[in-house]
Amino acid sequence: MRPSGRQTNEMRDVSIETNVTIHAEGSCLIKMGNTHVLCTATVDEKVPPFMRNSGLGWVTAEYGMLPRATHTRMRREAKNGQSGRTQEIQRLIGRSLRAGVDRVALGERQIQIDCDVIQADGGTRCAAITGGWVALKLAVNKLMKAGMITSDPLIEPVAAISCGIYAGQEVLDLDYPEDSDAGVDGNFIMTGDKLIEVQMSAEGSTFSRSQMNGLLDLAEKGVSELRAVQLAAVS
Amino acid sequence: MRPSGRQTNEMRDVSIETNVTIHAEGSCLIKMGNTHVLCTATVDEKVPPFMRNSGLGWVTAEYGMLPRATHTRMRREAKNGQSGRTQEIQRLIGRSLRAGVDRVALGERQIQIDCDVIQADGGTRCAAITGGWVALKLAVNKLMKAGMITSDPLIEPVAAISCGIYAGQEVLDLDYPEDSDAGVDGNFIMTGDKLIEVQMSAEGSTFSRSQMNGLLDLAEKGVSELRAVQLAAVS
Amino acid sequence: MRPSGRQTNEMRDVSIETNVTIHAEGSCLIKMGNTHVLCTATVDEKVPPFMRNSGLGWVTAEYGMLPRATHTRMRREAKNGQSGRTQEIQRLIGRSLRAGVDRVALGERQIQIDCDVIQADGGTRCAAITGGWVALKLAVNKLMKAGMITSDPLIEPVAAISCGIYAGQEVLDLDYPEDSDAGVDGNFIMTGDKLIEVQMSAEGSTFSRSQMNGLLDLAEKGVSELRAVQLAAVS
Amino acid sequence: MRPSGRQTNEMRDVSIETNVTIHAEGSCLIKMGNTHVLCTATVDEKVPPFMRNSGLGWVTAEYGMLPRATHTRMRREAKNGQSGRTQEIQRLIGRSLRAGVDRVALGERQIQIDCDVIQADGGTRCAAITGGWVALKLAVNKLMKAGMITSDPLIEPVAAISCGIYAGQEVLDLDYPEDSDAGVDGNFIMTGDKLIEVQMSAEGSTFSRSQMNGLLDLAEKGVSELRAVQLAAVS
Amino acid sequence: MRPSGRQTNEMRDVSIETNVTIHAEGSCLIKMGNTHVLCTATVDEKVPPFMRNSGLGWVTAEYGMLPRATHTRMRREAKNGQSGRTQEIQRLIGRSLRAGVDRVALGERQIQIDCDVIQADGGTRCAAITGGWVALKLAVNKLMKAGMITSDPLIEPVAAISCGIYAGQEVLDLDYPEDSDAGVDGNFIMTGDKLIEVQMSAEGSTFSRSQMNGLLDLAEKGVSELRAVQLAAVS
Amino acid sequence: MRPSGRQTNEMRDVSIETNVTIHAEGSCLIKMGNTHVLCTATVDEKVPPFMRNSGLGWVTAEYGMLPRATHTRMRREAKNGQSGRTQEIQRLIGRSLRAGVDRVALGERQIQIDCDVIQADGGTRCAAITGGWVALKLAVNKLMKAGMITSDPLIEPVAAISCGIYAGQEVLDLDYPEDSDAGVDGNFIMTGDKLIEVQMSAEGSTFSRSQMNGLLDLAEKGVSELRAVQLAAVS
Repeated sequence: MRPSGRQTNEMRDVSIETNVTIHAEGSCLIKMGNTHVLCTATVDEKVPPFMRNSGLGWVTAEYGMLPRATHTRMRREAKNGQSGRTQEIQRLIGRSLRAGVDRVALGERQIQIDCDVIQADGGTRCAAITGGWVALKLAVNKLMKAGMITSDPLIEPVAAISCGIYAGQEVLDLDYPEDSDAGVDGNFIMTGDKLIEVQMSAEGSTFSRSQMNGLLDLAEKGVSELRAVQLAAVS
Repeated sequence: MRPSGRQTNEMRDVSIETNVTIHAEGSCLIKMGNTHVLCTATVDEKVPPFMRNSGLGWVTAEYGMLPRATHTRMRREAKNGQSGRTQEIQRLIGRSLRAGVDRVALGERQIQIDCDVIQADGGTRCAAITGGWVALKLAVNKLMKAGMITSDPLIEPVAAISCGIYAGQEVLDLDYPEDSDAGVDGNFIMTGDKLIEVQMSAEGSTFSRSQMNGLLDLAEKGVSELRAVQLAAVS
Repeated sequence: MRPSGRQTNEMRDVSIETNVTIHAEGSCLIKMGNTHVLCTATVDEKVPPFMRNSGLGWVTAEYGMLPRATHTRMRREAKNGQSGRTQEIQRLIGRSLRAGVDRVALGERQIQIDCDVIQADGGTRCAAITGGWVALKLAVNKLMKAGMITSDPLIEPVAAISCGIYAGQEVLDLDYPEDSDAGVDGNFIMTGDKLIEVQMSAEGSTFSRSQMNGLLDLAEKGVSELRAVQLAAVS
Repeated sequence: MRPSGRQTNEMRDVSIETNVTIHAEGSCLIKMGNTHVLCTATVDEKVPPFMRNSGLGWVTAEYGMLPRATHTRMRREAKNGQSGRTQEIQRLIGRSLRAGVDRVALGERQIQIDCDVIQADGGTRCAAITGGWVALKLAVNKLMKAGMITSDPLIEPVAAISCGIYAGQEVLDLDYPEDSDAGVDGNFIMTGDKLIEVQMSAEGSTFSRSQMNGLLDLAEKGVSELRAVQLAAVS
Repeated sequence: MRPSGRQTNEMRDVSIETNVTIHAEGSCLIKMGNTHVLCTATVDEKVPPFMRNSGLGWVTAEYGMLPRATHTRMRREAKNGQSGRTQEIQRLIGRSLRAGVDRVALGERQIQIDCDVIQADGGTRCAAITGGWVALKLAVNKLMKAGMITSDPLIEPVAAISCGIYAGQEVLDLDYPEDSDAGVDGNFIMTGDKLIEVQMSAEGSTFSRSQMNGLLDLAEKGVSELRAVQLAAVS
Repeated sequence: MRPSGRQTNEMRDVSIETNVTIHAEGSCLIKMGNTHVLCTATVDEKVPPFMRNSGLGWVTAEYGMLPRATHTRMRREAKNGQSGRTQEIQRLIGRSLRAGVDRVALGERQIQIDCDVIQADGGTRCAAITGGWVALKLAVNKLMKAGMITSDPLIEPVAAISCGIYAGQEVLDLDYPEDSDAGVDGNFIMTGDKLIEVQMSAEGSTFSRSQMNGLLDLAEKGVSELRAVQLAAVS
């Protein structure tokens, strides 16, 4: 039995509200159960120095958590610098989103995705990727409407879901109580039916290839459901 | 004429939504027009070392802005450290809220207020103080209900409003377009009909005592309206 | 009774010694009783990047305290970074001095004011502003003598004084024993009979508008006495 | 054809020289082709504060690269702080090694693994894990010989290998020229025939589950060869 | 010919004014020509953790320069951290003063020497050591008068002087114009007729043992003159 | 009796292995007994901004220690920043090597020397200078062979040795047990029979000119032996 009473292959309720801020070129608030992440996209007509005159676009991401997004308050990173965990997550978000971008079609400009966790209950990095793609797509749509981009650089949504082995069972979309007890958990980032990134990790445990395949099956189900929510949000 | 079409003594629409997060002991989302600030209160039964065994409570505050809370994106402070402006604001919030606290009645514990600007359109520090008091009060109410505090340490609300001289006229509650053009602006923090803190500043200009009094009149009006919204929110 | 035996409206002895270093374009040592601040002005023909080609000048300030300027030694900021208090003070000094500068007449150059507290006994930020203006004026005079500036960008002195409520009485020019006990204190920065900046703050207390007016009356008296000392020093 | 002329399932020459420093409790120099990593183990009888009195041991790791370990010189991290990449790698090394440790058997003490890359040619994090386990094992052996540990906390070696898709082909043990051109690459950390961590990542590309399985097959072959080298080194 | 017109073996005018601040346990302003250094001594009854319960005292030093102590303004170290040069100098000052202290007689307490350069014209580290000893001695005298120390831990003054080869000639007490042109310069720290520290350094040049001996002869002359000024100051 | 059984004027066994990395333009591993330092030279055709268009070359150095190069593990500087000691050493290495370079003959380019201590047993800074010169020479030889430099900018080797007073005796080449007990120790950097830098320092002691001369005699003997090893290594 999962703490939430969900089936092993059942995702939390997902919603994506778009255009939630007046300033950003694209924005959404994604809720996966009690995990709430605000994602904004900022278009910058300048790329980083190492890409100048390449004709290629760039997508990058930053990630943060409000200090009291968690059960007990965390120290504010603005006072202490970004932790190793934060840096690892924001590198993953940027890499994942870039894998779904046609950088030639985007043209020589940068889109910066900011993912800020308002409330956390497990799976924040996956929600950030799924929501981040929506913010990115909305910003790209604005550029296309303005005639600054002529062919869509974002063919397929990029979405992410966590799966893990909790109490001996393979389960989809871990919430915090499951995540903190899982012997094995993984993050699966996909576009269409293809994989972009797989990160599986055992804590005080190991896993077999057969278990790995079980988790991949769950992930494919979850990502296909997320994709439907993403497409509805941006249409 | 003000850019927003408001009267000189007219505040923006104010709303305070309470209990907006599942984790914090007290929380609210305050909206003053397009300025939106999320305020949370965290109760910590330990006080800072220099106050141990004093029997007195402590209230402190931290302030942040999401990178794209503003018209153009700001650099993330978690990567660059808190700016002088941020530190100045959070010192002001803490000092203002403490002025309205009976530290003996609070007992030897600390309440940490986090004020995070989700969307900015001028007056964020004032909104943070006004909303911060609501989050603080909700946390105190929880401590009183639990019997950990017996006499209410928060008698009167603390609220704050900005006023300034825009296009030669004394106006209440500057929004960003006014704030960036005002020759003189001030922040007025009050509790009941008493002043706690006054900060007035001219940029490339000066002001007379008579203008100062005009702004104080406006501030008194604004704060009394804010107090009504605060009391409705916490009741 | 004030600890120093002064009348409530009596300032400490003030002296300003000019040209105290061989290197700076302008310099003075200001003493307000036991508070001693060394102020230097450095002329830089380059302005910060955001002001290039604006034709406007800039004045900025930095503030520091020697570790043993105080009763007990403070940690050296070079080892630990500038505190929030230090940053707040140096922003105030720069803003206050700029308010008294005709930036067109100054021409596109920067003058950097350094205010270093050699010995502290309350009121260091006010002494820094008052002395900083003298250093600035001396540097401007040198530029005028050299024909690099043709019309004086500094019409009126900028001076600052603190006032507060000590032992229930409104008093002028708080020294450290008063400052650490005052329920309300304020800093008043003026040029001529106009206000540039007012900062009033209650610690564990509040104040009325009538008290505020009492402090302003004291401040006007103090600033007019300081102005006489400034003008004597630079003539 | 691979740049090195190796078969697709052929690892580089591996050697592990043990006890290469006079100070560390365990040490080795692992060479995988031109990638050379010095691994040392330091036994500390104190655990981090959050583990005190738990009775459990801890293993942690740090990773560094000499500035000229690479083709062009990198900036020294001691001058600039650890990059996000470095932090991500050292977290991976620590997590991987801990997965192979019986923390009860280790007893309440910490072993710190330092992995310093003397020369880099791709696959440094995998070499660090494989060599790090050898250094760890040698330190544990010393503790067992001294009677401080009675049952061996390290049953099976932990080893790691990278695989990827280079020029359309699935290949084992990428060197730098392959790594910088591979569309997909992954790191596989195993103990015995079980998986501990899988990290697969596409750059400007995607991969299918069948390709993923192909890489896993290669990884299993590689890890079993590494395990033989590890066991020979520590025996 | 020296730029200042001094003889090769002629020191600049030296003066040491004592008790220049109201707060420090010992203080002086040392002037060697245009090099002015304010030295304060702070007594702390606690020693650093690594010396607790050793019964031994400790003397340490910190060094700083006001930003406009130099011909062109230097960046403020409080904003940028201490430079390598600053750290090297303050380590030298502390080491030199400790060499003249009987740490048993001092007793388990720490004396912190702060040396802040008000105006620089070469030789600041030597002036800091010579003046630092005076501040230290005055603080020790106060402890002796209070009966907290019974036998004087400072038998002989510690003093320092620079010498160098300027325009081919061995000269005593380099000022800034000489220092910036000297091919060889050295700092000589002595107590009585004994050496504590010698630092000689060639820039784009070399020196012979005979030249080294020439500089040592000059240094001995200089230090004996400084010692007389120190003893006069503290008596 | 020295702990190692060496004669007072006997150096440890020295060896210099060259071309130890595949990437650097020059490299060596110098061993002075149990002190092992890896030295690499990196040629950069760009000089620092302040030297552009001067026609002069530049040589600079950085120094580091692996965390477990020492008996007890030191904190990794990449996590904590370079210590004052590290900065002082790398400034010394750069200054010493530059003193032996004809900067006109080198031409407007920079050579960066990295000295990383793999294992420490006293005298690491001296080994770094001696080995650093060999790495520098090998890089210069490569530039000469390529015709980029036409006249050799490195006429004479630069070498360094420590001497000190241990148990009352003047001894050559202190190892760690001696160094940590020596009352006086010094580092002597020479080129040919000329001195470049002398640093002598007493800890809780003093020294006479006659002792200083004794140490210089030892140093001259040591440096002449090192020079022979250097010349053999680079020929």
